[in-house]
Amino acid sequence: MKLVIAIVQDKDASQLSDQFIDANIRATKLSTTGGFLKSGNTTYMIGIDDQRVDEVLAMIKEASHSREEFMTPPVNLDASMEGTTAYPVKVQVGGATVFVMPIEKFQQF
Amino acid sequence: MKLVIAIVQDKDASQLSDQFIDANIRATKLSTTGGFLKSGNTTYMIGIDDQRVDEVLAMIKEASHSREEFMTPPVNLDASMEGTTAYPVKVQVGGATVFVMPIEKFQQF
Amino acid sequence: MKLVIAIVQDKDASQLSDQFIDANIRATKLSTTGGFLKSGNTTYMIGIDDQRVDEVLAMIKEASHSREEFMTPPVNLDASMEGTTAYPVKVQVGGATVFVMPIEKFQQF
Ligand code: NI
Ligand code: NI
Ligand code: NI
Repeated sequence: MKLVIAIVQDKDASQLSDQFIDANIRATKLSTTGGFLKSGNTTYMIGIDDQRVDEVLAMIKEASHSREEFMTPPVNLDASMEGTTAYPVKVQVGGATVFVMPIEKFQQF
Repeated sequence: MKLVIAIVQDKDASQLSDQFIDANIRATKLSTTGGFLKSGNTTYMIGIDDQRVDEVLAMIKEASHSREEFMTPPVNLDASMEGTTAYPVKVQVGGATVFVMPIEKFQQF
Repeated sequence: MKLVIAIVQDKDASQLSDQFIDANIRATKLSTTGGFLKSGNTTYMIGIDDQRVDEVLAMIKEASHSREEFMTPPVNLDASMEGTTAYPVKVQVGGATVFVMPIEKFQQF
């Protein structure tokens, strides 16, 4: 048994929550802020058998790894610029920090 | 010294907080959601001497173990059903998940 | 790599957050309550290389160690006491609880 503590961006949290439920993985969600990010993030605490740790890490990686996305700036930014087009711009999104912690005792009542 | 992380239902948290205070156990409370439960739960972080870990576990178990309770459905559910009686129904409440974690260093400033 | 969990008073948190940023230390903030304190406190989770643990502990100690401060009671308390002066009184502030936890695996995606 391990305790996995995963800090992901709020943006990626709902997909990850769904995947945990589908895989029958019990994750407790903490509301957190910080790192260098101004935006909110979500911290999961997950108690998991040793042999499923890699599966959990793969799920977290797939849902939240750092990546570039194209974002089209909102139209109202261009309101005063007649004739211009809102081109999609690259933004960096995602990223997760994960700690796998040893446990001395695990109990459910 | 160990760090006990205990996730209990909000319903059981105030009794447990009282017991921790009575027993001079310092517990820090985190607001959490999740597991499979839609309802809120409360996570305690408790720094405790090795020889008191079992005492803490017993307190958490007694305050929050999974159990059946009889709940009488609220009267207004029966408003349209004249002559019926609201019978108490069995519901499952409680349950706690507890991790006992090793600590390398503990300090208070 | 270690996971440092530090519980400090809200009063001391913003100074500490600034120092973490200046020192390029990534700290995730959890909103917590409790201990015996009625007032809010802030819990930091900090993933840090072994050789920087003492530096982090020193920063937490300096920002939040238990200490006496002089506080002048607010003027409106004296509204009915003509001719009296609001003398500063000593109050105990600060204090931090810190756990240094072992990590089995650390990953960033
Ligand atoms: Ni991908
Ligand atoms: Ni009982
Ligand atoms: Ni000082």
